[in-house]
Amino acid sequence: MPVPGPGYAITARVDAPARPTSTGDLTAAVGHAGGVVTAFDVVEARTESLVVDISVNARDTDHVEAITAAIDTLDGFSVRKVSDRTFLLHLGGKIEVRSKVNLRTRDDLSRAYTPGVARVSMAIAANPEDARRLTIKRNTVAVVTDGSAVLGLGNIGASAAMPVMEGKAALFKQFGNVDAWPVCLDTQDTEEIIRTVQVLAPTYGGINLEDIAAPRCFEIEARLRELLDIPVFHDDQHGTAVVVLGALRNALRVVGKRFADVRVVVCGVGAAGSAIIRLLASERTADVIAVDVDGIVHPDREGMDDNLVSIASQTNRDKRTGSLADALVGADVFVGVSAPNLFGADELATMNDDSIVFALANPDPEVDPAVATQHAAVVATGRSDYPNQINNVLAFPGVFRGLLDAQAHEITDEMLLAAAAAIADVVSEPNPSFIVPSVFDTTVAPAVAEALRGTATKLARRGQVTAG
Amino acid sequence: MPVPGPGYAITARVDAPARPTSTGDLTAAVGHAGGVVTAFDVVEARTESLVVDISVNARDTDHVEAITAAIDTLDGFSVRKVSDRTFLLHLGGKIEVRSKVNLRTRDDLSRAYTPGVARVSMAIAANPEDARRLTIKRNTVAVVTDGSAVLGLGNIGASAAMPVMEGKAALFKQFGNVDAWPVCLDTQDTEEIIRTVQVLAPTYGGINLEDIAAPRCFEIEARLRELLDIPVFHDDQHGTAVVVLGALRNALRVVGKRFADVRVVVCGVGAAGSAIIRLLASERTADVIAVDVDGIVHPDREGMDDNLVSIASQTNRDKRTGSLADALVGADVFVGVSAPNLFGADELATMNDDSIVFALANPDPEVDPAVATQHAAVVATGRSDYPNQINNVLAFPGVFRGLLDAQAHEITDEMLLAAAAAIADVVSEPNPSFIVPSVFDTTVAPAVAEALRGTATKLARRGQVTAG
Repeated sequence: MPVPGPGYAITARVDAPARPTSTGDLTAAVGHAGGVVTAFDVVEARTESLVVDISVNARDTDHVEAITAAIDTLDGFSVRKVSDRTFLLHLGGKIEVRSKVNLRTRDDLSRAYTPGVARVSMAIAANPEDARRLTIKRNTVAVVTDGSAVLGLGNIGASAAMPVMEGKAALFKQFGNVDAWPVCLDTQDTEEIIRTVQVLAPTYGGINLEDIAAPRCFEIEARLRELLDIPVFHDDQHGTAVVVLGALRNALRVVGKRFADVRVVVCGVGAAGSAIIRLLASERTADVIAVDVDGIVHPDREGMDDNLVSIASQTNRDKRTGSLADALVGADVFVGVSAPNLFGADELATMNDDSIVFALANPDPEVDPAVATQHAAVVATGRSDYPNQINNVLAFPGVFRGLLDAQAHEITDEMLLAAAAAIADVVSEPNPSFIVPSVFDTTVAPAVAEALRGTATKLARRGQVTAG
Repeated sequence: MPVPGPGYAITARVDAPARPTSTGDLTAAVGHAGGVVTAFDVVEARTESLVVDISVNARDTDHVEAITAAIDTLDGFSVRKVSDRTFLLHLGGKIEVRSKVNLRTRDDLSRAYTPGVARVSMAIAANPEDARRLTIKRNTVAVVTDGSAVLGLGNIGASAAMPVMEGKAALFKQFGNVDAWPVCLDTQDTEEIIRTVQVLAPTYGGINLEDIAAPRCFEIEARLRELLDIPVFHDDQHGTAVVVLGALRNALRVVGKRFADVRVVVCGVGAAGSAIIRLLASERTADVIAVDVDGIVHPDREGMDDNLVSIASQTNRDKRTGSLADALVGADVFVGVSAPNLFGADELATMNDDSIVFALANPDPEVDPAVATQHAAVVATGRSDYPNQINNVLAFPGVFRGLLDAQAHEITDEMLLAAAAAIADVVSEPNPSFIVPSVFDTTVAPAVAEALRGTATKLARRGQVTAG
């Protein structure tokens, strides 16, 4: 059962009798119904009656109804109206477009618009690279989705994906000072998505793909990387992989093991799992065992798609076969990006000493974190109510800040590894409950950006990639 | 020859001798070279020398060189560096994305992003119309171009169009509090443009087409109006037509004539001309004569495209033939949206008494405004250095403000006429030099928006169009 949280926060306006015990009765009733009171205001006091606004964190819709019913049951109390604070916050959307220039006088207009703007347009027509200097391309990223795999909600479409992409844009600005714009496409055709992004690209200095279902996302990303001269980053793949690698670096420090010596089980071979596996291969991890719903991925398995064939070729050095439970025997690290409640104490007990468990399925992890903590040396989840939250916010703002600053034309695994190391290094003394920085640590994004810029410049010098 | 203006403003940093006459010598030299000094700062003063920043409006690049050469010629003076103020203003682009919500605490994140945002997404998935309430769709317009007819610069492409579209977005915010986003498409294929806009539409509450070449723009607009449930406005057509109609209303008031009695010659049948002709038809003007490079448009002319055939069917009641000069004989109104210097005093003299001349070709009008003023009762141009500037900024911010407020699903000629009337009515006492309000008159956009909302509501009540 979920715990009451701010994502389900309501404010109820309640008519109450003007008794000395009224406010105590009200908070007691809410508490008794399982609600967490977060604020309380008497907005009107008359001789006979009070009007009280009470803010409560609840679990879900049914819980809200139970709480308001509990209030209504009190003698003389009635709930006048319930406002959902999450919905209130979303009214009219979460982002806006602002002008960076003054347009107060005719001279302002003459420079920012006609006739002055014509010279700027002609300069870009003569030298297209100038767009990175004279337009928003310098600082602007498209957050592109087809709405096919939004959070854990599935294929809810472009319109319903908007609040998530707006939130992402808000995070981009807050943490990376990057201008990000939601591009929610009303198509789920691979070719059409690719062509649309290509056609939109002149405005943007980078593309952040988001919540596009696997395996479509792999082809879209690969093809766009070929077609475009700006970096293409798929947050569900690369963002998650960067934070997982960073967290794993510190977890390994905590238990005193090295990438070169550990066996890692990656459960789930969708966008996140596939990218984690590829990045682990770059770190020269001793061995990676990929597991999906059909068990361990190995070269002789039948009916594998291109993605699984590629994964089989990079993993499973000893050609193991079997189930997730088989894979866990003797493993040093479990990284789950799959489904809830796949295993328990028995399987945990078969892992190597000082094991590391990243159970990232959200909201319900692959293994109960409380149980995992009894067996593993380090446990991480995707949730904010346990230590060691693996949150992409640690990666994407700094990654794009660095890419835009370097005017990078592409993004490489070397850059992703540098970003992972930068996130890890923000934690100077990792311990079992502190392997990644807080998402509110303002030093993270600048450190990641610096790592990206440095790597981009180094690679450009080597002539491997081009940077502006 | 153009006059020096703020669109060509430079700031020169000059090393000068520390003589009492130095600053006078400098400004005199610039003035003698035809530059207009707009600011002057001594930024460094030593015993022997001064460093002076002098801001100058020039005509063009050659003029800037002539001015700096004139300074360098002065004894002891040298220009250290010239900054172009228009380019300085464009560095990094002119707009940005801002978050409207706080993201300072974990509770903020839980509401604006995961997990709270999931409920908002699910609400929209269940009821797509909620996107107009819970996302930026409520206040956001796409400024769509293919870069094929940008200002008077021609087909300069998507990247080079960006500064113009960013400027447009800045104007949308400043004058209409509308969030507008540049959508500069790297394709000039009609079908691809239509499909791309369709695919992008979930994010937007309206589409503003901009600087797309005729005749492609007509098909794109018509098809998108059929396909989308949000209003589609082509500023080069409808924006210009609205302001021209508004200005013409007041010009007719000045000369005491009525739409029903006047003959109007419209020269130019591109985007603007075609839309002006259609809107004049809605006003039941006595007669409209359309003229293009091949002369008067009439039903028996050969080789006409769909647009010309449509125009021929709406105009030229008496089936006139001949040249622009023939059309002008006895005409009450000339509206030019075509090319520079097409006629002069002789043709003006053949027009009816109290004639009205809108010579809107930019920067060089169809007829010299100084000459036109000697013959016509009212003269308007597209330029800011003459009275009566016909500027689309008077229309589009208020039009979209009204459309978004009404949650309109389409835009009709009745709405455009209401907008034109609203612009005209802002001028309570029109006179020959004051038929349209200033672009900086902050009452214009609210008046236009109010007219749009009123008309949208009225039409919705009649069941002709749907509004939310």
